[in-house]
Amino acid sequence: MEPSIDVVGVGNAIVDVIATVPEEFIVGHDLVKGAMTLIDAERATSLYEIMPPGIESSGGSAANTVVGLVSMGGSAAYLGKVRDDQLGEVFIHDLRSAGVAYDVPPGLDGPPTARCLIQVTPDAERTMNTFLGKSVDLSPADIDEEVVASAAVTYCEGYLWDAEVAKAAMSQAMDIAHGANRKVSLTLSDSFCVDRHRAEWLDLLADKVDIVFANEAEICSLFETDDFRSASDRIRGMVEVSALTRSANGSVIVAGDETIPVAAAEVERVVDATGAGDLYASGFLYGISHGADLERCAVLGGLAAAEVISHIGARPRQSLAGLTR
Amino acid sequence: MEPSIDVVGVGNAIVDVIATVPEEFIVGHDLVKGAMTLIDAERATSLYEIMPPGIESSGGSAANTVVGLVSMGGSAAYLGKVRDDQLGEVFIHDLRSAGVAYDVPPGLDGPPTARCLIQVTPDAERTMNTFLGKSVDLSPADIDEEVVASAAVTYCEGYLWDAEVAKAAMSQAMDIAHGANRKVSLTLSDSFCVDRHRAEWLDLLADKVDIVFANEAEICSLFETDDFRSASDRIRGMVEVSALTRSANGSVIVAGDETIPVAAAEVERVVDATGAGDLYASGFLYGISHGADLERCAVLGGLAAAEVISHIGARPRQSLAGLTR
Repeated sequence: MEPSIDVVGVGNAIVDVIATVPEEFIVGHDLVKGAMTLIDAERATSLYEIMPPGIESSGGSAANTVVGLVSMGGSAAYLGKVRDDQLGEVFIHDLRSAGVAYDVPPGLDGPPTARCLIQVTPDAERTMNTFLGKSVDLSPADIDEEVVASAAVTYCEGYLWDAEVAKAAMSQAMDIAHGANRKVSLTLSDSFCVDRHRAEWLDLLADKVDIVFANEAEICSLFETDDFRSASDRIRGMVEVSALTRSANGSVIVAGDETIPVAAAEVERVVDATGAGDLYASGFLYGISHGADLERCAVLGGLAAAEVISHIGARPRQSLAGLTR
Repeated sequence: MEPSIDVVGVGNAIVDVIATVPEEFIVGHDLVKGAMTLIDAERATSLYEIMPPGIESSGGSAANTVVGLVSMGGSAAYLGKVRDDQLGEVFIHDLRSAGVAYDVPPGLDGPPTARCLIQVTPDAERTMNTFLGKSVDLSPADIDEEVVASAAVTYCEGYLWDAEVAKAAMSQAMDIAHGANRKVSLTLSDSFCVDRHRAEWLDLLADKVDIVFANEAEICSLFETDDFRSASDRIRGMVEVSALTRSANGSVIVAGDETIPVAAAEVERVVDATGAGDLYASGFLYGISHGADLERCAVLGGLAAAEVISHIGARPRQSLAGLTR
């Protein structure tokens, strides 16, 4: 049977709390600049207390990706878990009103909806501190087999691997997808995340992943090397397609014998890097599921990323439909 | 005794939910463009459902004003009521982290924290739909006499007049302020709000207000005239200082025999008019409480307003300290 939607995203359902801070804030509070650090409820409270005023905006890596893909004209569903609280309502609203099918029931007990405290420095770099809250309770029971089987690509975020139940949910989604002859895609998410799960992920990539997304730091961390070329050679034999992003230097697609470097799209002013990788995946997967060649997929990824880094927040501010013309 | 802070703001404690919409959205859903319309919980739910994805940002007219004033280098406190829920936490955080003294205890029962569903159209006009929630439960018991007496100016928003208990709280704050030989300031808030309370407000202005803020539509509505000049003549005898704003045409200060027109500050691109009046009041009141003459007060108001309309959201994105130099 033909897939009826392009992509189902599986990820941590998170609301971002974004504040701009001076460089000293990162240094003074021992934050790991540019990374995603997991924090507990207590630390979330104490860090929030010292953060400047912020704005709240729905986030979550895979959720951002499917929203971007729908904005380009694609079709998508999402699997992730919130609580039945105000931030959960915001998350649900922002996904559904963006046109993403999202029917995982919010949890009625347990921790609150996940939030990510994001500090944006004047250099537009984002530093993320995530309280996973209810998102880690995404369980195999929440993985709707019909939804997964209906999607051309099941796109999972590596962040999910940090929680046992969610990890089981993600594995199950991958198995359902392959059982239905669909593609499985994984983003490595964060170099520290790679570091935590290196051995398991090397197996996972070889066994269950068709399309991998990684930035330079992540792919180098995976193979414990400083050399991007050597890392890209090693991933080549492991998965069908690797989309390796290099920030301002664009991306490199590695697939079979091919190596396709694509320049980054132009951005007038980079304001907030949050969501760059997520939206790159939107564009790339839109291309994949609409029959574009790999170079065009990378170009579309770059264009979608360029929009999201030109403003605060990880979701597109304007329709991305124009990018596909 | 000398006042120890510049301004205490008294108002509806609200979190804004902001989405950009096409012009057709306003027309198609019978929204009153440019106005603040009160909505109940049911309407808040149904309107939110049809709104595009948004961002959440702390708001509330008087709260925006005191945040702007502190950003300019002034000192301020705030009196307003939230619930002990997630949006209430956000509101409290954003005020305190901005440097505003805010100690009204959140309500432990009753409706949730107030929210304002704001639609921003391509012309940068904002259309507001407010679910007042817990904010209307601001009661005379929440008006800290010491805080009010410590402020050079007690600044109240007309919006409060829509709820009986909050109205009593506002009247009490005005009485305490005058009892301590302080100034009382009122913003008329919204022309429909003026229409609802015209008779009472004419008495209130004559009896209890020293400094009034109003835009052209509001002051004209107050005196049921289309003629700005005639409206400004009538307010002249009623209060000590009237700061009358005229959007792109700047503002006119009417005080005793004086009439001082001041041009608007230049704005590269108006993105979202939300908070323009609130931030004008920030600048004006900063001037008043730092010994500036009325013309300079109006200039400062215009500068603060210009910053807030150049981006989404009703709170300043960057420090306004530079404006006072």
